Amino acid sequence: MLRILVAFVMVAICLESYKTVKAESGNEYTLESARTSLVRQEDTIIFGLIERARFPINSPTYNQNNISIPHFFGSLLDFLINDTEAIQAKAGRYVNPEENPFFPENLPASVVPHYPFPQFLHPAAALININKSIRKMYLDELLPMFVASGDDGNYAQTAASDLSLLQAISRRIHYGKFVAEVKFRESRKDYEPLIRAKDREALMNLLTSKSVEEIVVKRVGKKAMVFGQEVSVDGDVKGNKYKVDPSVVSNLYQKWIIPLTKLVEVEYLLNRLN
Amino acid sequence: MLRILVAFVMVAICLESYKTVKAESGNEYTLESARTSLVRQEDTIIFGLIERARFPINSPTYNQNNISIPHFFGSLLDFLINDTEAIQAKAGRYVNPEENPFFPENLPASVVPHYPFPQFLHPAAALININKSIRKMYLDELLPMFVASGDDGNYAQTAASDLSLLQAISRRIHYGKFVAEVKFRESRKDYEPLIRAKDREALMNLLTSKSVEEIVVKRVGKKAMVFGQEVSVDGDVKGNKYKVDPSVVSNLYQKWIIPLTKLVEVEYLLNRLN
Repeated sequence: MLRILVAFVMVAICLESYKTVKAESGNEYTLESARTSLVRQEDTIIFGLIERARFPINSPTYNQNNISIPHFFGSLLDFLINDTEAIQAKAGRYVNPEENPFFPENLPASVVPHYPFPQFLHPAAALININKSIRKMYLDELLPMFVASGDDGNYAQTAASDLSLLQAISRRIHYGKFVAEVKFRESRKDYEPLIRAKDREALMNLLTSKSVEEIVVKRVGKKAMVFGQEVSVDGDVKGNKYKVDPSVVSNLYQKWIIPLTKLVEVEYLLNRLN
Repeated sequence: MLRILVAFVMVAICLESYKTVKAESGNEYTLESARTSLVRQEDTIIFGLIERARFPINSPTYNQNNISIPHFFGSLLDFLINDTEAIQAKAGRYVNPEENPFFPENLPASVVPHYPFPQFLHPAAALININKSIRKMYLDELLPMFVASGDDGNYAQTAASDLSLLQAISRRIHYGKFVAEVKFRESRKDYEPLIRAKDREALMNLLTSKSVEEIVVKRVGKKAMVFGQEVSVDGDVKGNKYKVDPSVVSNLYQKWIIPLTKLVEVEYLLNRLN
């Protein structure tokens, strides 16, 4: 309860500074720049999938209470995420509004000199973090689809790969905040009445472009083929054997990344006029 | 001095257990399995280069004493490597003899259940760690060759990308220990007299295969083209523009990775009969 109250007070403070800087910050993000970023982020996610697939499932990484650290209850993955996020928070990672931690509680402050990231989003954006759902989807649904069974003992490397991949997927999905803000600024008169009416379904329809989604799903499948192939020196493609099944990558986008991004967009828009 | 003494005592203890398990451990590593691993590690290194190239140089990541952490003197990158390695050490990363830390001093012990990694190497392998040279090569020579100038404020993400890439390059170079052991076991009678004579040059010649090196250098350039291209949904290759210049990747292998791997091989062999 206290945490929610503190968050709202912080949002109120940010809202004031947001109003002040909005005029100067301009359009650092455009539909074109957002599109370019999303396309580039696809490569990062596919590289991450291929790198995680180097290791088998390595289930001791995910078993609860498999490690002996006083006062820590959770899996090795939880431990590694929690402690690595703390280091990266000190190094300033979460000062960039494109980044969202998996364990936002008790993160230490940044120790690096302040960098003036553009204040492009409405301050309510800071309250939107669906990493719990992303983590659950990743562990329960995605991982079993693309990693082999087995145990090779490389639990730390496995957890580090998981974290990199989770961060890439999380960044992609929460980028919905920027996409929604760009769309809102471009068609304010279309969005405002739907936001005031809190009409989730109509907002979802307005921001959905089926044809764009189909291209994305096809493109990531194609990228999985290109990046996951065996490359030989004579340039022959040794087709049909990919390091991660391209249909898994297309599925990941179709079933989870695109719908969750749109969920973030709708959540953001519903708070856009606060 | 004390550290060196402790290290030698540890090696002596390991040597005993090595002699005991050698017979059972068999040939988990072969020339074929080593080759397969090295080829796969090329992908990891190239993905790492492409991912690091997402960010400009971001020089505040490397400036000395740019961060305010009590009792810590060094760059943000040093801080991130030091603390991340400590977490990964707890998670058991360095129990696997394929892994070598950048800051081996004061690493905490593993807290995960013991995994029986094969004891394939001679125990003297544990003393060979050229990460200081790798780190220097990376910062002074490699980075300026493939990242753009500029500062986008993503210092934590930059340092995390640096660490992943450094770990991949380090693993590849120190894999020379396994390559040397495989070669030694295959041609013991050729290696033994050269080792006893401490003839570095003759050892270097014996383990060098110019034709294999040429194939590797060509293949990594080719991989950089494949993995670093823009992929469009219609399958057309939008050639000529790569995320990392393929000649940088070939150069990295030719000038540093291959020579440093061979340096590790020679160092390992010189200690092989101790």
